[in-house]
Amino acid sequence: MALTRIGLAGLAVMGQNLALNIAEKGFPISVYNRTTSKVDETVQRAKAEGNLPVYGFHDPASFVNSIQKPRVVIMLVKAGAPVDQTIATLAAHLEQGDCIIDGGNEWYENTERREKAMEERGLLYLGMGVSGGEEGARNGPSLMPGGSFEAYKYIEDIVLKMVHNGIEYGDMQLISEAYDVLKSVGKLTNSELHQVFSEWNKGELLSFLIEITADIFGIKDEQGEGYLVDKVLDKTGMKGTGKWTVQQAAELSVAAPTIEASLDSRFLSGLKDERVEASKIFQGDYSTGLPVDKAQLIEDVRQALYASKICSYAQGMNIIKAKSSEKGWGLNLGELARIWKGGCIIRAIFLDRIKKAYDRNSNLANLLVDPEFAQEIMDRQAAWRRVVCLAINNGVSTPGMSASLAYFDSYRRDRLPANLVQAQRDYFGAHTYERVDMPGAFHTEWFKIARNISKN
Amino acid sequence: MALTRIGLAGLAVMGQNLALNIAEKGFPISVYNRTTSKVDETVQRAKAEGNLPVYGFHDPASFVNSIQKPRVVIMLVKAGAPVDQTIATLAAHLEQGDCIIDGGNEWYENTERREKAMEERGLLYLGMGVSGGEEGARNGPSLMPGGSFEAYKYIEDIVLKMVHNGIEYGDMQLISEAYDVLKSVGKLTNSELHQVFSEWNKGELLSFLIEITADIFGIKDEQGEGYLVDKVLDKTGMKGTGKWTVQQAAELSVAAPTIEASLDSRFLSGLKDERVEASKIFQGDYSTGLPVDKAQLIEDVRQALYASKICSYAQGMNIIKAKSSEKGWGLNLGELARIWKGGCIIRAIFLDRIKKAYDRNSNLANLLVDPEFAQEIMDRQAAWRRVVCLAINNGVSTPGMSASLAYFDSYRRDRLPANLVQAQRDYFGAHTYERVDMPGAFHTEWFKIARNISKN
Repeated sequence: MALTRIGLAGLAVMGQNLALNIAEKGFPISVYNRTTSKVDETVQRAKAEGNLPVYGFHDPASFVNSIQKPRVVIMLVKAGAPVDQTIATLAAHLEQGDCIIDGGNEWYENTERREKAMEERGLLYLGMGVSGGEEGARNGPSLMPGGSFEAYKYIEDIVLKMVHNGIEYGDMQLISEAYDVLKSVGKLTNSELHQVFSEWNKGELLSFLIEITADIFGIKDEQGEGYLVDKVLDKTGMKGTGKWTVQQAAELSVAAPTIEASLDSRFLSGLKDERVEASKIFQGDYSTGLPVDKAQLIEDVRQALYASKICSYAQGMNIIKAKSSEKGWGLNLGELARIWKGGCIIRAIFLDRIKKAYDRNSNLANLLVDPEFAQEIMDRQAAWRRVVCLAINNGVSTPGMSASLAYFDSYRRDRLPANLVQAQRDYFGAHTYERVDMPGAFHTEWFKIARNISKN
Repeated sequence: MALTRIGLAGLAVMGQNLALNIAEKGFPISVYNRTTSKVDETVQRAKAEGNLPVYGFHDPASFVNSIQKPRVVIMLVKAGAPVDQTIATLAAHLEQGDCIIDGGNEWYENTERREKAMEERGLLYLGMGVSGGEEGARNGPSLMPGGSFEAYKYIEDIVLKMVHNGIEYGDMQLISEAYDVLKSVGKLTNSELHQVFSEWNKGELLSFLIEITADIFGIKDEQGEGYLVDKVLDKTGMKGTGKWTVQQAAELSVAAPTIEASLDSRFLSGLKDERVEASKIFQGDYSTGLPVDKAQLIEDVRQALYASKICSYAQGMNIIKAKSSEKGWGLNLGELARIWKGGCIIRAIFLDRIKKAYDRNSNLANLLVDPEFAQEIMDRQAAWRRVVCLAINNGVSTPGMSASLAYFDSYRRDRLPANLVQAQRDYFGAHTYERVDMPGAFHTEWFKIARNISKN
């Protein structure tokens, strides 16, 4: 069996819920409890809630040995003596550099005492109350870490993994839209698509996802005629990480339209039966029938994909920046891009450019305004606009590309129509507004003035 | 002083946090605690956290009298005797039809006993544990009601208000985009805009928001030259309800791109300084310079606004439908549309059409497929596509309209490119896929096959 990412000891309801939550986010987790029936119960629940990767162990040694090093074990047992007992049990099997996180609400002096004791044995110890109750543990606990910095890093890692997956949603959605436009408007065959994506993988789009996309278009169906990709049902599953990224973005007041569009597209893909019904109601030929220059289209789509990708990554990086600033992590975003190059799904030479952008300016407000990215967008925007409009005029939806383009066109405008929205808010809710020409907060009796005007 | 919407008695940390949370959602709240220093502390916090509408009272009579009837008082005090004492104190001032919600974690037999006792006095009593701890109370408690149905209705009301506000965000954003296209591309003056919106308010768009928009364009700046709307800073505030709607939609797996686009637009509007900087980097003339037929443009924009609005409401209704089904509320969506006609911000004759759609079919999968709405969209889609493309080609962002259009074009397609996304997921994560031509879950060794192909 492959090693798991993290362990959790103490399987009362809070512990069970937190374990399921972590597993649902895509982290295989080992679980242990002194009363072993709780272990089996947790594994049963994991099975019932969608085959989540939860692995149960009845003895501490095999529990600890099932976790990848350096090991992280979250402990959720009653404060006081049970914590000390569990630490003793686990520590007998843990090795230097391993980490215990106490998720209970322990008195801080106990935590400090234990941290010191663990440090002497080369173990990290982190007191981190998991707030949010049972419900929170299951669906979104609020972790409040104190204790040692190194251990804290492990948790930060999980946040970064979530956002990575949100960006991954964006990449996959944008690639699927490129496919849709090339296939539905450009009428490219799978064999041509295989060629196109293989070619793209030699240039600025070089990445794991483009590479496997090229592979996919080359594979024939072994159970019938034609290509396998055409036999795959257009229903996309998901594991909750995209959802988490969208909810976090909203929480942090960061605009993330491309990632949202990707999540929404997965939701809509799931409504296959509804879509089939709707397609009958809205039947008709949506294509313009205008001739398409294939070579030009392929080049346009390539550029649109690249420009949209910049916007998607800008959003992802902004979420992490906001989270880092909220939590005081002081993350180095360029370094992060470097880390993502190592083995993860979104690995791409594109990440080098992001690293360089943050190396040039670690306080970059937005990837879009980095001089190199800005220039790349300027060079590609004509093609980008052509592709989105072509799709719209042919009834093909490109939610990710058009959300990216709207993001760019909003972000680069010094004046948005938000003045009207704010005027409306002041009209009906007296929310006040600022002015462009003088400081202060203003309120106008819009209704009264308007009625006076209409009277005269 | 105007009456508040709800009261909360018991201001330990959980109570304080829940009061601030409710106030932040836009509900004025009265608060009371026997130890009055806690009252002042809560009011201070409300002030510090953004002038939230929290009103403190030192005696139970004025506390109860400050709440609108039928009154709802949430009680967050220690289980057992303190609950009985607080009930006695409050009940002395409450009137028939008023409601007490016990937010503590009380033994259910106590709750049943009290419910019976209150019923005899004509009061509603609802035991409803507030889970989520302090943090949850502040930012998103999980309410688990038991007890009487009528009291429960009050809470449902709060959920519906949140979604109402999400829809309101959508309406305001779409109107601001109509304004932007008419102004930035069509070069309409404020005086012309005033005429256009006044005219629109006589037809299918008749609504409170269109009416006040017309008013706004008619108002001159009393502090200087020109129209006031041009002096209003393009930075939109918000109170958290749109955020909540977006997070709920994600939680419920409901696509809500128009509402998301509206929230994101508010976020981007807030980055005024960044936008001014970006506008210098991306400077240039974005307009096509092509001549625009003003009358045609105005009519196109009107139709695009209406079609987009249908999509936005479809999303909002789907969120409520999903929530209702999750909670077993059995809500009547048509009735809801009727309720919203009475005095709320989104009141509009449009809501009559929604009511009719649900009267025709209470299980409607999506507003879009109601025969009347479907026809209206078909009639307007050419104009809708023209407006979005015109905006894109002139560098004007219409995030709400284009998200709505992409929503429509995704929802009405029997086949989306989600097959590629699912193939990718199976490639790198062995997530399996379904096939279009046979039942079951399949997994393919894409990588192995692709490498074999490239070897041959």
